[in-house]
Amino acid sequence: MADKTKALAKLHSLDTERMHLERAAAVLRWDQETCLPAKGVEDRAEQLALIEGFAHEKLVNPETEGLLGELEDAGDLSAQEEDFLRVFRRDFRRAQRLSPEFVRECARAEGLSQAAWVEARKNSDFAVFAPHLEKMIALARKKSEYWGWAGTADSPYDGLLDIYEPGLGAADMAGVFYPLRERLSALLEKISAKAPALGAFLTGPQYDVQRQDAFCRELLGGLGFDFTRSRLDLSAHPFTTTLGFNDVRITTRYAAAEPLSGLFSVIHEGGHGFYELGIDPALRSSCLAEGTSMGIHESQSRLWENVIGRSRAFWEGWFPRFKEYFPQQLSGVGLDSFYRAMNRVSPSLIRVEADEVSYSLHIILRFELERRLFQGTLAVQDLPGAWNRAMEEYLGLRPACDAQGILQDVHWSMGAFGYFPSYALGNLYGLQFWEKLRECLPDTDAALGRRDYAAIHRWLGENIYRWGRRLEPSRLLLKITGKELSAEPFLRYIERKYTELYEL
Amino acid sequence: MADKTKALAKLHSLDTERMHLERAAAVLRWDQETCLPAKGVEDRAEQLALIEGFAHEKLVNPETEGLLGELEDAGDLSAQEEDFLRVFRRDFRRAQRLSPEFVRECARAEGLSQAAWVEARKNSDFAVFAPHLEKMIALARKKSEYWGWAGTADSPYDGLLDIYEPGLGAADMAGVFYPLRERLSALLEKISAKAPALGAFLTGPQYDVQRQDAFCRELLGGLGFDFTRSRLDLSAHPFTTTLGFNDVRITTRYAAAEPLSGLFSVIHEGGHGFYELGIDPALRSSCLAEGTSMGIHESQSRLWENVIGRSRAFWEGWFPRFKEYFPQQLSGVGLDSFYRAMNRVSPSLIRVEADEVSYSLHIILRFELERRLFQGTLAVQDLPGAWNRAMEEYLGLRPACDAQGILQDVHWSMGAFGYFPSYALGNLYGLQFWEKLRECLPDTDAALGRRDYAAIHRWLGENIYRWGRRLEPSRLLLKITGKELSAEPFLRYIERKYTELYEL
Repeated sequence: MADKTKALAKLHSLDTERMHLERAAAVLRWDQETCLPAKGVEDRAEQLALIEGFAHEKLVNPETEGLLGELEDAGDLSAQEEDFLRVFRRDFRRAQRLSPEFVRECARAEGLSQAAWVEARKNSDFAVFAPHLEKMIALARKKSEYWGWAGTADSPYDGLLDIYEPGLGAADMAGVFYPLRERLSALLEKISAKAPALGAFLTGPQYDVQRQDAFCRELLGGLGFDFTRSRLDLSAHPFTTTLGFNDVRITTRYAAAEPLSGLFSVIHEGGHGFYELGIDPALRSSCLAEGTSMGIHESQSRLWENVIGRSRAFWEGWFPRFKEYFPQQLSGVGLDSFYRAMNRVSPSLIRVEADEVSYSLHIILRFELERRLFQGTLAVQDLPGAWNRAMEEYLGLRPACDAQGILQDVHWSMGAFGYFPSYALGNLYGLQFWEKLRECLPDTDAALGRRDYAAIHRWLGENIYRWGRRLEPSRLLLKITGKELSAEPFLRYIERKYTELYEL
Repeated sequence: MADKTKALAKLHSLDTERMHLERAAAVLRWDQETCLPAKGVEDRAEQLALIEGFAHEKLVNPETEGLLGELEDAGDLSAQEEDFLRVFRRDFRRAQRLSPEFVRECARAEGLSQAAWVEARKNSDFAVFAPHLEKMIALARKKSEYWGWAGTADSPYDGLLDIYEPGLGAADMAGVFYPLRERLSALLEKISAKAPALGAFLTGPQYDVQRQDAFCRELLGGLGFDFTRSRLDLSAHPFTTTLGFNDVRITTRYAAAEPLSGLFSVIHEGGHGFYELGIDPALRSSCLAEGTSMGIHESQSRLWENVIGRSRAFWEGWFPRFKEYFPQQLSGVGLDSFYRAMNRVSPSLIRVEADEVSYSLHIILRFELERRLFQGTLAVQDLPGAWNRAMEEYLGLRPACDAQGILQDVHWSMGAFGYFPSYALGNLYGLQFWEKLRECLPDTDAALGRRDYAAIHRWLGENIYRWGRRLEPSRLLLKITGKELSAEPFLRYIERKYTELYEL
């Protein structure tokens, strides 16, 4: 047993070094998105490649392999050590089964593919991107096979989904996504028949971006964001990244004509930040000290952004203060019109501009196309047509060009197939958690009205944040709600909210 | 010869990787000074230790040693390759002769020593710092011995001076510093007899720091600072750091009551930045792609800050614009009073607040004390007394407490003995270069008046910037001026400028 203890300690030390190197790489990437001078990109790529190489070597090397062998049936471990070994093994196998040549081939192809996508989108010319997309699909398929996914129609795609949402396959997702699609489409149809609740005060006047930023910082602080452990900065696309146990950073961008855009980005990324900042200190600097899946991560960001952030109760607490920041722009505007305006439903072609009702439909469309691409029942050349037909069917809109359709997202150009479902899963998980939270904390609406988030954070911290990667999504869900993945809580929430808002 | 070519290529590749890792570490350190959330320090130290360890391993390893052996008498190399091998060998030997245990001991002692210094300075209690200073001196002495410095009274100190100013020993420096001290003291005495040229507009009104920052950015741009390859940020203490060939960053800080403090920091750091940005692209990512010594670096920063930045001609170009930024504060102020105010001579106890005339005296004082400490003719316990006596002798001021005296600088607590002389050497080199530059470019005053810095940059670039570490300080100086180190040009400059200013 002394040997096992020694082997485990050694494995922890390798894991800690790997995580510190991963975090160092995250610093370099954060800097690249927020600070790097235009011409500094080339050297930065070299620096990153070296550090990521070292991180990889800490994970995949003969010593690690030997230690994992020694610990094969370690027995008598604490629950946390068992979780550590399981997750470490998972990371190890994933990394080990991809040869350095294959990883380099992927990186090269990704570089070319992203450049082609930028060009294709600029000129709305899918043909420029198509051969690269073919290549990225072929590589992703190979990767999934290297990991051992084979034998069923959904195997290659399941292997990719498993990267982002461990334990959840395409068939499981389809089982919840299809009824979700039907009910959302029906709701959307009813809403479309009603006159939209416009908010001219949100589209006419200019909102000074420095004042927007000042308000967002006050709001974040009010939500309990700890600026001794985090930062808010600007970048072209908002993101959250962990640079250390006490260093989780979020970014946003502001536009003077769209005062809610930057604001809801801040709340969304803040939700990701709370999750990462709430991980148990006992997991510090280990591979367990991360969110457990992209879907669970999105459940936290979308919960804060939409369920909390777009609720009437939340703005009872904050609207008076927001008006103090923008007295001219919001002169004569009441809480009700503000609440209606921020929840306006208006289907659009672009996912990132979608409202709460139509958002999941954008995701399901992508999920279905990805699934068929990897089943081999849809060819890349037929993708734009399939996309446009589905858009028309789900949202009643037809893209005038591919830039507004199939070419709008960066994900596929990076080979990130299987990533999109996380966004819709986040909506579903989020409401499953939220229903339970409200059972436990019946005072929640009143607490939101008085800007008191302590109980919410305590509950989320205790039940979700602190576990990090110790609990896989399905175990976490079962532990908290006693249920499996379901769209019902989300549908209950969204149907009630919008039936009331649109007086359906 | 094919083998030699291969060996050289391999050495270049190791060197490039080392430099990329050093730059990555510089990113992490820059972030620590400008961005890092308060509680993020602990993880950052771990990240840095790992990356610095990897950088060290790229330099010191059996392969490098073998390659250097193979290239011992390579012959038939280009001048640049010869320079590369010489500098690489120097770095290699320095690193190789310090055992990992010794390096760790130094790092540990430095951590404790710095903490003790912070505490000691806060309470103005030298006794708290003294044992740590003893330890740091002992370690520095050991280090110098490991590098092979022995046999003369100045050996240990010469070994330390050589880190920052290769090729220049204590006796060489004393030879120029002592006459410099005499002439500056005499000048200072004459000035003190005159009424000071005050500038109430610089000490009374508040200068909005955002406007200060805007002006500084315009000024930097006007000086030719390339923001596609660099940045200006805020930090507690101004510094310049190189994060990549196209990524050189400077920092400053602003105080509303001291409008010139941030401004001259920006010009000073800008001077360092120009140097690093002007290095020959052929040296990119190699150990040659850095300034050749701290003294030459300071020659560039102090040239821009003082010789150019505090000249009348320079402000003929910029003062009207500065007044547009601060019309109220500078209402009724003419160029002459502004010029006099920024060049006010007023000896103070604190080095970083010193004017152009007394600054070098602060440095010579430190040089003399360091030299005696390492000669063993001054004991740490007698240091505060020796400091205070010298302050009285050179500047006519006596510190009321050690916080205002011996405890004011961080350098010794970090073990950076031999660093101080760089500042004074910078003044001397700077004026040796400047005299030559003006011989070549007789139109310089007029060019400054019309904000035209192109010819100055061309001259400095061609003669200094581009060489990086290829030319050691003395070779660089000889190549440009045909002379050795001398205080005469600096004294000519300073005596003429202040004789005129104070009508002596």
